Amino acid sequence: MNENPFAGRLAAFQKMLKRRKLDVAVVRDQANVRSLTGIDCDNAALVVTPDAVVFHTDFRYIPMVHRTAPWLKVKEIKKLDFKGARIGYESNMTVARFEAMQKTHKKAKFVDIIKDIHNLRAVKTPEEQEKLRRAAALNDEIWAKASSAVKPGMSEKDIARLIKTEMIQRGDGEAFETIVCIGANAAECHHVPDDTVWDGKTPILVDMGVKLDGYCSDMTRNIVPGKASKKYRETYSHVLNANLEAIKALKPGMTAGALDAVARKYLTKHGLGKAFGHSLGHGVGIEIHEAPWAAKKQKMVLKPGMSVTIEPGAYLEGELGVRIEDLVLVTEDGCEVISHSAK
Amino acid sequence: MNENPFAGRLAAFQKMLKRRKLDVAVVRDQANVRSLTGIDCDNAALVVTPDAVVFHTDFRYIPMVHRTAPWLKVKEIKKLDFKGARIGYESNMTVARFEAMQKTHKKAKFVDIIKDIHNLRAVKTPEEQEKLRRAAALNDEIWAKASSAVKPGMSEKDIARLIKTEMIQRGDGEAFETIVCIGANAAECHHVPDDTVWDGKTPILVDMGVKLDGYCSDMTRNIVPGKASKKYRETYSHVLNANLEAIKALKPGMTAGALDAVARKYLTKHGLGKAFGHSLGHGVGIEIHEAPWAAKKQKMVLKPGMSVTIEPGAYLEGELGVRIEDLVLVTEDGCEVISHSAK
Repeated sequence: MNENPFAGRLAAFQKMLKRRKLDVAVVRDQANVRSLTGIDCDNAALVVTPDAVVFHTDFRYIPMVHRTAPWLKVKEIKKLDFKGARIGYESNMTVARFEAMQKTHKKAKFVDIIKDIHNLRAVKTPEEQEKLRRAAALNDEIWAKASSAVKPGMSEKDIARLIKTEMIQRGDGEAFETIVCIGANAAECHHVPDDTVWDGKTPILVDMGVKLDGYCSDMTRNIVPGKASKKYRETYSHVLNANLEAIKALKPGMTAGALDAVARKYLTKHGLGKAFGHSLGHGVGIEIHEAPWAAKKQKMVLKPGMSVTIEPGAYLEGELGVRIEDLVLVTEDGCEVISHSAK
Repeated sequence: MNENPFAGRLAAFQKMLKRRKLDVAVVRDQANVRSLTGIDCDNAALVVTPDAVVFHTDFRYIPMVHRTAPWLKVKEIKKLDFKGARIGYESNMTVARFEAMQKTHKKAKFVDIIKDIHNLRAVKTPEEQEKLRRAAALNDEIWAKASSAVKPGMSEKDIARLIKTEMIQRGDGEAFETIVCIGANAAECHHVPDDTVWDGKTPILVDMGVKLDGYCSDMTRNIVPGKASKKYRETYSHVLNANLEAIKALKPGMTAGALDAVARKYLTKHGLGKAFGHSLGHGVGIEIHEAPWAAKKQKMVLKPGMSVTIEPGAYLEGELGVRIEDLVLVTEDGCEVISHSAK
């Protein structure tokens, strides 16, 4: 990188500092640092003032930063030093680190900027959108290969292993722990793959996301054998319609809470309101879960460039579980579905 | 699990509460919760009083907890409720979460218990030691297979992919992002595998750890071709001796800082003090990095049952890097080296 691929976002961040009358902000969260500089480093502190940016890290990473980001001023993190009467900080930092900072800046007023930075990250740059499309496309390809390789006699762990191996061979590995649920295990919506063996007749739920070039993907599909029960098929059809309704309804300008409500209303109307215990979706980017949060009452307004999953589900404990999830990008007049696997 | 595999540690934790005159402790850190209950859950709050334990989680995980830990009292995390004048908390919790807790418990005194819980976790149960041995043995096997498959023309990424794939096929995947460094890239001691191609003549450094059954392993080895430079060979020999000296010196009762000093002194004597920029090692367990910290001035006393890595290194920017790392368990009269790969 000969220049900062996130120069625009960093400039917007500095503008925010001015607006909130902050003298300086210290960004420590790894994904936040990356979203402002492009640099992935697990021990970094980005010190930003309205006019300057200094990247602090330890001796292990300094050569890497010099090599990959010559445009950036770098300092040893042991010498982390900043001044100001009003200091921006991230409230997802640990209490221990925050208290240490308060000790060395006793007179300063600390202002939480986590929402500001999450809001900036929620709108993806065109390059980030392209990376999300590529990660989602690879996820589709891996699902196509894996789903056709699933055979009776395989366990949830076997299926997960198959998917994980493809993700490493073709991408940068899992964006999150792959979820594979056979039959009633799908009622545990974050079930960990176990030794349950597939009999060829029971439905299988797979929630998977491959990481590619620093960006995540996320999709849930279900293998529905001819012998799936009538109740399963009905539930599936309601969940699919909830997914389609939400995609159809999505328009920039609506709130993330209103989007959640579309799917929730549909499922409630069909007796599945209580069975849909989680929120409709979340943004996806450098992290697998980020803003916007498509959940009840969330007021964040959806804007072009945001990513969000549309993942309604219905879970009946001890019986069955269905979830259908697509990753979409908000556009000027609706959304672009970037998960292309059949559903 | 029909009973708590960590009943002993949980009892010791409750004893600590009494000793520190705490009415209650709220444990939120995922690894900490697991180390007290055996349950791996990314949204849990363990509320512990000197006489009772309640596991709080959300609806997604309740069936799993019911199924795997019938001995445990479970409640919905939305109804998280605890009382006390003195409340134990973990200072690695986020500021946002801590402030919310302070708001709902305005009169309480909050006491940081992170060190107490890390101290308890540092001493592994016999079952945990056995899991570490098995994870280390699998790491050895994977290294044997991978190192013999490395051929000229392969890139760092290719080698990393080979190792990661084996880790998924035979274990539960990586305990941390596998590090592969060809030649001078090894001077960046946390180098990310890139497209650098092996010429068959340059040394390769590999730092790898497979996860197995919830426990991590960690080992660093180097492939040293016949054509490695004299300087490399000398450096290697010094680092190896530092590793062997530290293993020989390790005795229960000494501090973790004193252990670090053994290797540091040796390397300093041979002109490599400055080239050894990191600490000697760290404990390994549920997490890849945990107490004890074998670093300068660390006062934690090494006790039988603790695990610790012995990983001296020497890094000369732009030139070369060597690190040799073994995982060991502290015994009654020294240590058991559980990494068995040739070095």
